[in-house]
Amino acid sequence: MFLTTKLHFNLHHQHANKNIINNNNNTCFCNYYNTKIRPITIYNTNPLIITTCKVKSRSMQGDENLIIRSSLIEPDGGVLVDLVVGEGERGAKRVEAESLPKVKLTRIDVEWVHVIGEGWASPLRGFMREDEYLQSLHFNSLRLKNGSLVNMSLPIVLAIDDETKGKIGSSSHVGLVGLDGDCVAILRSIEIYKHNKEERIARTWGTTTSGLPYVEEVITPSGNWLIGGDLEVIQPIKYNDGLDNYRLSPKQLRQEFDRRKADAVFAFQLRNPVHNGHALLMNDTRKQLLEMGYQNPILLLHPLGGFTKADDVPLDVRMEQHSKVLEDGVLDPKTTIVTIFPSPMHYAGPTEVQWHAKARINAGANFYIVGRDPAGMGHPTEKRDLYDPDHGKKVLSMAPGLEKLKILPFRVAAYDTRENKMAFFDPTCSKDFLFISGTKMRAYARSGENPPDGFMCPSGWNVLVKYYKRLQVEEEQAQQPAVLST
Amino acid sequence: MFLTTKLHFNLHHQHANKNIINNNNNTCFCNYYNTKIRPITIYNTNPLIITTCKVKSRSMQGDENLIIRSSLIEPDGGVLVDLVVGEGERGAKRVEAESLPKVKLTRIDVEWVHVIGEGWASPLRGFMREDEYLQSLHFNSLRLKNGSLVNMSLPIVLAIDDETKGKIGSSSHVGLVGLDGDCVAILRSIEIYKHNKEERIARTWGTTTSGLPYVEEVITPSGNWLIGGDLEVIQPIKYNDGLDNYRLSPKQLRQEFDRRKADAVFAFQLRNPVHNGHALLMNDTRKQLLEMGYQNPILLLHPLGGFTKADDVPLDVRMEQHSKVLEDGVLDPKTTIVTIFPSPMHYAGPTEVQWHAKARINAGANFYIVGRDPAGMGHPTEKRDLYDPDHGKKVLSMAPGLEKLKILPFRVAAYDTRENKMAFFDPTCSKDFLFISGTKMRAYARSGENPPDGFMCPSGWNVLVKYYKRLQVEEEQAQQPAVLST
Repeated sequence: MFLTTKLHFNLHHQHANKNIINNNNNTCFCNYYNTKIRPITIYNTNPLIITTCKVKSRSMQGDENLIIRSSLIEPDGGVLVDLVVGEGERGAKRVEAESLPKVKLTRIDVEWVHVIGEGWASPLRGFMREDEYLQSLHFNSLRLKNGSLVNMSLPIVLAIDDETKGKIGSSSHVGLVGLDGDCVAILRSIEIYKHNKEERIARTWGTTTSGLPYVEEVITPSGNWLIGGDLEVIQPIKYNDGLDNYRLSPKQLRQEFDRRKADAVFAFQLRNPVHNGHALLMNDTRKQLLEMGYQNPILLLHPLGGFTKADDVPLDVRMEQHSKVLEDGVLDPKTTIVTIFPSPMHYAGPTEVQWHAKARINAGANFYIVGRDPAGMGHPTEKRDLYDPDHGKKVLSMAPGLEKLKILPFRVAAYDTRENKMAFFDPTCSKDFLFISGTKMRAYARSGENPPDGFMCPSGWNVLVKYYKRLQVEEEQAQQPAVLST
Repeated sequence: MFLTTKLHFNLHHQHANKNIINNNNNTCFCNYYNTKIRPITIYNTNPLIITTCKVKSRSMQGDENLIIRSSLIEPDGGVLVDLVVGEGERGAKRVEAESLPKVKLTRIDVEWVHVIGEGWASPLRGFMREDEYLQSLHFNSLRLKNGSLVNMSLPIVLAIDDETKGKIGSSSHVGLVGLDGDCVAILRSIEIYKHNKEERIARTWGTTTSGLPYVEEVITPSGNWLIGGDLEVIQPIKYNDGLDNYRLSPKQLRQEFDRRKADAVFAFQLRNPVHNGHALLMNDTRKQLLEMGYQNPILLLHPLGGFTKADDVPLDVRMEQHSKVLEDGVLDPKTTIVTIFPSPMHYAGPTEVQWHAKARINAGANFYIVGRDPAGMGHPTEKRDLYDPDHGKKVLSMAPGLEKLKILPFRVAAYDTRENKMAFFDPTCSKDFLFISGTKMRAYARSGENPPDGFMCPSGWNVLVKYYKRLQVEEEQAQQPAVLST
């Protein structure tokens, strides 16, 4: 199987709307931010391939018996939400949507339609109304009708501006328009309420500093109103970037775990290339689970596929790197599933790590690995981490609604200069260990310098080196003065 | 009974430490902020007088049978916390405290020692350790060992600076030093952790704007570390401001409700003078409760007695005003208890109103009246309310841990110009209603102008007029150049 992926380079704040690929059959957009795209084939083997589950999308009114229930862990709210309408209804829904007042979605709004529609945010059935928004903002959880709580740490909301609000008027439903101009969904029984951006940012990030990537990309340019309601997705969201086969829904993942007869699923969220320290940790976790008596623990290696900040390694490069890690046997393909988690990234540390864990409950994972400073980043304006690196795992371990998920704290791995390999850090001989941060790793790759032997499998490292070389060439070209052809 | 109270006037940001009254028998400080104090007798009747409950403070190791359990509502965690050591132990505890490393408390820290020590924050048994702090900050609640949640929306923490941290070293316990230099409490099994002020402010207030009163008074000048632990209060906190008799603990309040054979207690938190709109609401609530079948609903009129911002009406003036409201029969003394809630004010809107409600659960109230924009204020730098005025009651109604408290939403009262009285606002004839805000009321009183007849009972209004006149005189005097006597 050949995968066509794209070459990226950094053009800060270029609007991605220009990169729309129109496709009549699918709601489609390219999954890049601040990038210029030049399609090339960069890898041609696919050790990540899995049996694509041929589950037809279920109508919202469909038979409840079709609902996928995992034996390992119940989805939040007991029922996995699936808001993609059945094929037979799509024509009529599209006609109806076209007749409604319209809300134009941004690229990241569409990612959220994808996330909500497939049930990653179960039991959420649409963009949040004010009651849900306030609970999320203040309590990081939602109360169900039976009185129990489910975790919901990030407000999943849709912003509109004054003009759109005016056009909606007193209509109860609206059509949601994708990047190609087609209606991708209907939002029903809507509620419009004020979008206090400062409060949303302060309560979600615990700071109002400038330079927060999601804030600058999404919140600051957005409208002063939020619109909530019940979502009906007219057809599955596709990106046509050669990676759609890796975008398995929670339902499909649960089926795959069943097919593999998993008796434990441990999820590893990441937005970086996999080095041997990660691999050590994942393999060690599997070993621990086997020692605990599980017969067939399956690793869900689950790279985040939505919005990431400009200097993160792009999704397609990461996916190629992950494929090399499996090809090289650093991780075992037989007990590993690599698929894409479609959520955009907030970089909201302890608040966001709850979302990352909660969504994996819905995908059927009953163990979650949490590391140092999950969903964190450097403070945009100060020389320190934005979050206390220990707060993520502490908050996660105490979060309401996540009690049923078993949290596996990350053991710190570092490069052992005595053994020339990644090993669990031993503080009694700390001078023998070398810490290679993401920033340092990227600096190595960018400069063409090799990291110490044993840091990452060579074929995986080569993917990064190639990426940064291309990036450099493109950056140099972008700095050339434009010459008009005469 | 004569009550000696104090005359206030505004000296912005004058540090209150200068106003300490040393008293060998009691941990004592005057309860004023930004004020200069001149004791005078300003009222001489006391319709608020209630039977002072002669309950001796219970040792932490005391008999569990002595614990006050209300038949109306259980304290959070099932047991009312009481951390004031028994009289017999005080000498020994004081000697021990003096031998420990010391933490010097601010005026507001002492208010928190009072609050925690009497069990208003039950089941909290001391200043928060990091686990409690993080749960409060992220979830507005604490998980108990049995898995249930109690509400805890404000971080109740004690800040120390680098120097104090250094002096504490590896000690497990510290002595807490009051404003007069005596140890007022011991904090045991301490934990010291980072005080990220920006994150605390952002998550508590939903903004990091300048001009937040509690932030400027307490957080900004405080140290970079928080110290948590188990509190032992060496003796009851007293203020010696003539109002200590009105400072009933949750235990004493529960006993008083029992004594009065209350079958419902409805709490009304306030930090402003009581006008006839408030009275209408409280009387109407009582009527509603009677109609619901309760035989003897008791009103807990519960003015906040801790830190308030400089332009709020001071506690002693408010207490005198409340006394007039009862003397005049606007509220019925037989079914009303007026006592002081010792907490400092955060002005943190929807986050703080949860604290106000939760503390009243511990005091035995099973109904809580919530109004428009509770614990709110104007935005310090923008022309708008800091919080959406409806968010307080919405958040309160959904808050984890407050399910057992019945929330009574405030019906808006305004001045009915047809009837010349405060009445419930009728939007169908809104032009006949006049809204008199707290700011407008203060402006009337300050200018000596009377508000419309029927807005407030004349004797209560007179208290405010007298206060603002004194304030004006003092302000004028403060502007005179100082003359040295020769």
